[in-house]
Amino acid sequence: MQNIAHEKTTVMRHTVEPLPVPRWRRWLVGEVLSTADAGHQTIGKLVGLAVFSSDALSSSAYATQEILIILAAVGSSAFHYAIPISLAICALLLIVTLSYEQTIHAYPGGGGAYIVARDNLGERAAQTAGAALLTDYVLTVAVSISSGVAQITSAYPQLYPYRVLLAVGTVVLIMTINLRGVKESGTIFALPTYFFIAMMYTTVIYALSRYAMGSLGSVQAMGLHVEPFQPKHMLTAVTPFLLLHAFSSGTAALTGVEAISNGITAFREPRSRNAGITLLWMSGILGTLFLMISFLSVKIGAIPSEAVTVISQLAEVTFHGRNLLYFGTIWATTVILLMGANTAFADFPRLAALQAADGYLPRQMTLKGSRLVFSWGIVILAVVASLLIIAFGASVNGLIPLYAIGVFLSFTLSQAGMARRWHRCGRLGPEEEVVEPGSTLRFDAKWRPKMVINGVGSVATFVVMLVFAWTKFSDGAWFVLLLVPTLIGCFMAIHAHYKDLGSQLSLNGYHSAPRLNRNRVILMVSGVHRGSLAALRYARLLSHDVTAVHVSSDPAEEELMRDRWDVYGEGVRLVVLHSPYRALLAPLVRYVDNLAANALPNEVITVIVPQFVPKRWWHHLLHMQTATWLRLALLSRPGVQITDVPYQLR
Amino acid sequence: MQNIAHEKTTVMRHTVEPLPVPRWRRWLVGEVLSTADAGHQTIGKLVGLAVFSSDALSSSAYATQEILIILAAVGSSAFHYAIPISLAICALLLIVTLSYEQTIHAYPGGGGAYIVARDNLGERAAQTAGAALLTDYVLTVAVSISSGVAQITSAYPQLYPYRVLLAVGTVVLIMTINLRGVKESGTIFALPTYFFIAMMYTTVIYALSRYAMGSLGSVQAMGLHVEPFQPKHMLTAVTPFLLLHAFSSGTAALTGVEAISNGITAFREPRSRNAGITLLWMSGILGTLFLMISFLSVKIGAIPSEAVTVISQLAEVTFHGRNLLYFGTIWATTVILLMGANTAFADFPRLAALQAADGYLPRQMTLKGSRLVFSWGIVILAVVASLLIIAFGASVNGLIPLYAIGVFLSFTLSQAGMARRWHRCGRLGPEEEVVEPGSTLRFDAKWRPKMVINGVGSVATFVVMLVFAWTKFSDGAWFVLLLVPTLIGCFMAIHAHYKDLGSQLSLNGYHSAPRLNRNRVILMVSGVHRGSLAALRYARLLSHDVTAVHVSSDPAEEELMRDRWDVYGEGVRLVVLHSPYRALLAPLVRYVDNLAANALPNEVITVIVPQFVPKRWWHHLLHMQTATWLRLALLSRPGVQITDVPYQLR
Repeated sequence: MQNIAHEKTTVMRHTVEPLPVPRWRRWLVGEVLSTADAGHQTIGKLVGLAVFSSDALSSSAYATQEILIILAAVGSSAFHYAIPISLAICALLLIVTLSYEQTIHAYPGGGGAYIVARDNLGERAAQTAGAALLTDYVLTVAVSISSGVAQITSAYPQLYPYRVLLAVGTVVLIMTINLRGVKESGTIFALPTYFFIAMMYTTVIYALSRYAMGSLGSVQAMGLHVEPFQPKHMLTAVTPFLLLHAFSSGTAALTGVEAISNGITAFREPRSRNAGITLLWMSGILGTLFLMISFLSVKIGAIPSEAVTVISQLAEVTFHGRNLLYFGTIWATTVILLMGANTAFADFPRLAALQAADGYLPRQMTLKGSRLVFSWGIVILAVVASLLIIAFGASVNGLIPLYAIGVFLSFTLSQAGMARRWHRCGRLGPEEEVVEPGSTLRFDAKWRPKMVINGVGSVATFVVMLVFAWTKFSDGAWFVLLLVPTLIGCFMAIHAHYKDLGSQLSLNGYHSAPRLNRNRVILMVSGVHRGSLAALRYARLLSHDVTAVHVSSDPAEEELMRDRWDVYGEGVRLVVLHSPYRALLAPLVRYVDNLAANALPNEVITVIVPQFVPKRWWHHLLHMQTATWLRLALLSRPGVQITDVPYQLR
Repeated sequence: MQNIAHEKTTVMRHTVEPLPVPRWRRWLVGEVLSTADAGHQTIGKLVGLAVFSSDALSSSAYATQEILIILAAVGSSAFHYAIPISLAICALLLIVTLSYEQTIHAYPGGGGAYIVARDNLGERAAQTAGAALLTDYVLTVAVSISSGVAQITSAYPQLYPYRVLLAVGTVVLIMTINLRGVKESGTIFALPTYFFIAMMYTTVIYALSRYAMGSLGSVQAMGLHVEPFQPKHMLTAVTPFLLLHAFSSGTAALTGVEAISNGITAFREPRSRNAGITLLWMSGILGTLFLMISFLSVKIGAIPSEAVTVISQLAEVTFHGRNLLYFGTIWATTVILLMGANTAFADFPRLAALQAADGYLPRQMTLKGSRLVFSWGIVILAVVASLLIIAFGASVNGLIPLYAIGVFLSFTLSQAGMARRWHRCGRLGPEEEVVEPGSTLRFDAKWRPKMVINGVGSVATFVVMLVFAWTKFSDGAWFVLLLVPTLIGCFMAIHAHYKDLGSQLSLNGYHSAPRLNRNRVILMVSGVHRGSLAALRYARLLSHDVTAVHVSSDPAEEELMRDRWDVYGEGVRLVVLHSPYRALLAPLVRYVDNLAANALPNEVITVIVPQFVPKRWWHHLLHMQTATWLRLALLSRPGVQITDVPYQLR
């Protein structure tokens, strides 16, 4: 640093008004928001439940159906296994809930799997959790919206042929809403969530009471027309593999349970306590709803079908037909599913921004757009989810084998991280504290039971993940098993690039180089006209050492060029590069390379490229774009600067 | 011009070796060729017939079938009308041939419709002919290749489901061959053309002799399985409209007759005479073949079909089955059709280059690629023809209504141009000469009969065009009737742009502006690092008036930036633009606009944009590309130059 001037620099500060936004964009996305507009409001438990539970609760809309679809390989005689399978899933839900409840208290600043894994298990585990979660958010959107559309097409069968269009249209709609930026003003969320809870409880309690009185009908007795799902392979008997397979499908019910642990900061103080209680409420509602739907579906003889959902069958049987209550249930289910998809639109960009800030995803993803949302992440999520929906024809059953692996992988890592954390807490002294980016470690007398709870959670979810991968491997789980390591590889490669970039730009050991004092200016001329003469004028301002260079493959044209340059060239020397192979760029690049190889240390080469700027975009197609190609070719040459001298056409 | 320095400029001349070509490209397209490699060899009548007649002769392969397909609307009882219709078409062929024979003598340098229309009827007529011909060449490729594939799938029905793939694959193959550059070495062309002529004459003469002996069988007697073409509408009786409709379809036989008039320069001297005789030969062969095929098709009871071509039926009946002679005929027909398509790959790019040189198409189309061919035109032709083939499922019958309008429009314009030319010749004195770009006008004593011949040709082809447009309007001719004016509009818009560009760049009335002597340098800095300090070093070489500009939307980041600039900024003043809306470009553009508005006449603004150049292409995705966007935004600002200072990453 010894030779750097320490003069005080003049600093001015301008505040710049935003450029006017085109009207269509303002209409679609809204006015630009200043960074100072980013407010923050905290919410209570009741609103918190509404805001964070839609993803979890909505999975009750398809989990039972997915269990029955697997059991259908044996036939309807096997459907009653759905009840014990649902009980097992509820037991798993309990374990996961208790594990996350501990996470919420340990990470009052937000304890998503990514942060917990990063702080306790290191970089690779964190990126694994990141890859799993990003995959999972994409699938949440695809599955929830496909299931929402399936509810609608159950009630309005004439829409069934348009299900892919409807689903993709819905993705685009939700994307647009999110690009506008959703203020988390609880009421928007509270209304449909509580409407869903109310409608579902009405349905199941009414159905249970009719069942208790022995008056609950059945799909068969009502003569409902349901196109049954056609399994690819039929089995003659129930096998353990089949039960595990059905169990794996049903674990989709657990997706979304982690949502509250990501959003703790949104809660009113004592926020960990409020968030924890909300989590318990949510799991209670989810568990009871799921269990009762499974029980009742078996009792009404529901037929798993892609055209008429089990929820639709249950509501139709319970309410004696397609009346107002039926449609209320269907719409409530649809809306909660869309809201479940909507939460992924908040979570995916937020996680991507977190990973980008850590240098594992492109930096652009940390930028907030004009409406203070992570626009890049929102658009990427919408595009990938739409592609998935199109590829799978909006079939929930087709998408399910890709889902839930990511969820359980992130559960496993999160709980393993927590277990490790309790172990570290146990080894601290009573007054010791370790401050980490996400939380503060303190000694905790109950570290042993807490470690056991998280440890059990981690092992349980890990086993479920293995079961899922095994039973659903050939259905599509193989794809995710390939995708997640691929994503991790990409994250690592991106990180390596940023680290490398940082070290190459770092000023550690920087000595300012001697001042440049020779500028060798090369002026590219395609002909003698007002554009090239304007560039010549600029070139002569830059340096006394100007050479005009012209490429010619036609001797007659070359002769004409020389004659005209004699008249207009202001005495600047002209080099004509003869190109017998008619290439334009290669001769110029070779010429510049040659000069650069022989440049002095205090000398720099400036290539000036005159460029027409036409007034209409399509006029660009009528020009050779030599300037653009030349610029791309020369950018990789050290010691060469490229200057565009634009000549604006009227 | 008074104030321009008339010093003699130093001129150097370098000859540049070609850059190494990537191996895949060399394998596919071949070594680069020097302009000096462009040789020229002239050919005699026999080779000339082979080179130029494939397009015309190959139309005999589908013309009869297209007549029968129209007549099928009434049923096989109407098929015998094919014979008088074919006679009428042969009469038209005679008129067109005589007209073109005169053109060949008047334009020894090549007299395509475009040149004749341009020289005699003016710009609009020429562009109309250009639009018609370009459309027609695209259709030649689509129709010929579709028909060639139809011959193959007639002989090998198992290939029928792959006909679109086969057709597009063939287009790509022919494109690749043409990108390599076909040396017009007659032998390649002579062999298949004469093979085709020999096979077809063998077939028809053998068939005629069997017919004369009364032993020629029929499709029905041989029990051939032919899936008949299903007309959309059935008629109960033969109407005049139907006959005109069938006649229009049959006029496809005339396509390609103009080929020789484009290629006169390829002939040995006396070239007009040689070319004219070749034209007469060609028309004679085409006329007799077409007429005999039509006659025999009727006599064998051929069934128009998209799956088994009429040629295939004729060969099978004539040769008593699918033996060597049958397959010889099919392959000869296929190869001549592909060669017909191939001639369009020579004609389309040549015409496009002509129009581009006149300023009606993008200038790029005048450039010859590394193999001395007009690569742009070849690729565009292949792409558009492939799209047509895909859109029409490689159906000749589907494509025919789009074809031939363009041909007859160009015939009309060409003959009208010739008639006008004879009229002008007649008004010249005996010794007078008018030299035009394409030909020289001299007095001609026989100008009256010559004018009548071309006049009759013009009127006849015009009437046919109207009949064609009327009878085939709803089958698809409407599309061409819209397309041709649209293309003409595009050509005119392109021409207007080039004219405007020329006048804006012209040095008429140019006074060199006073020399620039102030350079206000604006250095964009995103942070203080080796990249921006390298740019600072360059900025200080350019001018003493350097201002560093930094955009910040975060006060903490701004503070850090200032502190670091104090240390490393070499005393250059720093302006911080505060961007509360997080936009990066807009504040910079506004700032520069402000400076530009207040610049002195002898002052120029140079914006320096440091830019990382990553070593791998995908690394670009990890950067914001601010430099690129800023460059695009500033290019349209007068008086602002943009300099990239690249910082190459290792």
